[in-house]
Amino acid sequence: MSTDRQVARFGPFKDFIANGVKQGDTIYISGQVGTDGEGNLVGEGDLAAQTRQAYANVQEVLAHFGATMDHVVDETWYVTDIGATMANVGELFGIRAEAYGKNPEVAQTMIQVAGLVMPMLSIEIKCVARV
Amino acid sequence: MSTDRQVARFGPFKDFIANGVKQGDTIYISGQVGTDGEGNLVGEGDLAAQTRQAYANVQEVLAHFGATMDHVVDETWYVTDIGATMANVGELFGIRAEAYGKNPEVAQTMIQVAGLVMPMLSIEIKCVARV
Amino acid sequence: MSTDRQVARFGPFKDFIANGVKQGDTIYISGQVGTDGEGNLVGEGDLAAQTRQAYANVQEVLAHFGATMDHVVDETWYVTDIGATMANVGELFGIRAEAYGKNPEVAQTMIQVAGLVMPMLSIEIKCVARV
Repeated sequence: MSTDRQVARFGPFKDFIANGVKQGDTIYISGQVGTDGEGNLVGEGDLAAQTRQAYANVQEVLAHFGATMDHVVDETWYVTDIGATMANVGELFGIRAEAYGKNPEVAQTMIQVAGLVMPMLSIEIKCVARV
Repeated sequence: MSTDRQVARFGPFKDFIANGVKQGDTIYISGQVGTDGEGNLVGEGDLAAQTRQAYANVQEVLAHFGATMDHVVDETWYVTDIGATMANVGELFGIRAEAYGKNPEVAQTMIQVAGLVMPMLSIEIKCVARV
Repeated sequence: MSTDRQVARFGPFKDFIANGVKQGDTIYISGQVGTDGEGNLVGEGDLAAQTRQAYANVQEVLAHFGATMDHVVDETWYVTDIGATMANVGELFGIRAEAYGKNPEVAQTMIQVAGLVMPMLSIEIKCVARV
């Protein structure tokens, strides 16, 4: 392994997966969902609340590497109901803009998945950052 | 943010998402679909036509950064009907080879999603390029 | 194209897709499934067997570039049944730890897809590595 690998591993699932790794100038963040620091879901059936929490978790992983949302270059939204997502995209992208502190300059991809790791999850956000 | 971030933001959805960003030597392109420069779908229910248009859109984003399909290193196809895709994979990969100008030297992943951002879409193509 | 592109192209599907490409310090690996070197499925309906084979295929692609699992920085699991995956996650992550030779220090994302390229596939694993 290259000697410059850094790993973020914290929270209730830390024995299960790493939250993210930094290699060279790139931070690869594990897909983040709407669970808090104790692993409890924030907002069952509430896509907006889960989106806000997922971004809070992305920010926490970035902070482990001394980075911020400004460093994110690519994000993928995995949602369980694309119709509900697009019907509320104004609100959801408002939450996204709040997380970034602006209309973000990132590549964005959004797909509807058949399911996420827990049935009560509505969204998972995967980001790549460059520092 | 690093000072070398470049952003492509054009077309009918430019206030909504960036088309792609370049950071260092890497271009991250937002998932591209079969809509033209006015946001109109090209070929409802026509997977081949949508594939051709999605690649045309990838090329347009690359051109914003002075890059071409030769620079693409990784692509993911998100399709809504993998059976139909594989049944016509000869034709579709012919369109892919035309877009690249050859049998491309890229990593390739293809999955069937539960849905894309608009119900009439059949394919979304996400690419990463290195310059 | 940059002059430092290397391509792995071998096995039964080599005329169809490249197995992976290396550009600069990054290896982009095509999604790997539970098929062996002749293209035959290993373990129909057997998620554990397919997972083991998919990682063996990842390792084979990495070896083409002189790399190992130690270099993987990011992985995505595309599964067709997230309920069955999570119900057996202890066993499956045991197979994952065997493939890496340890509890891996990689970013990890897992989603349920609507389908993979062949109906008998249960999992596809996509990795990015840095050398």
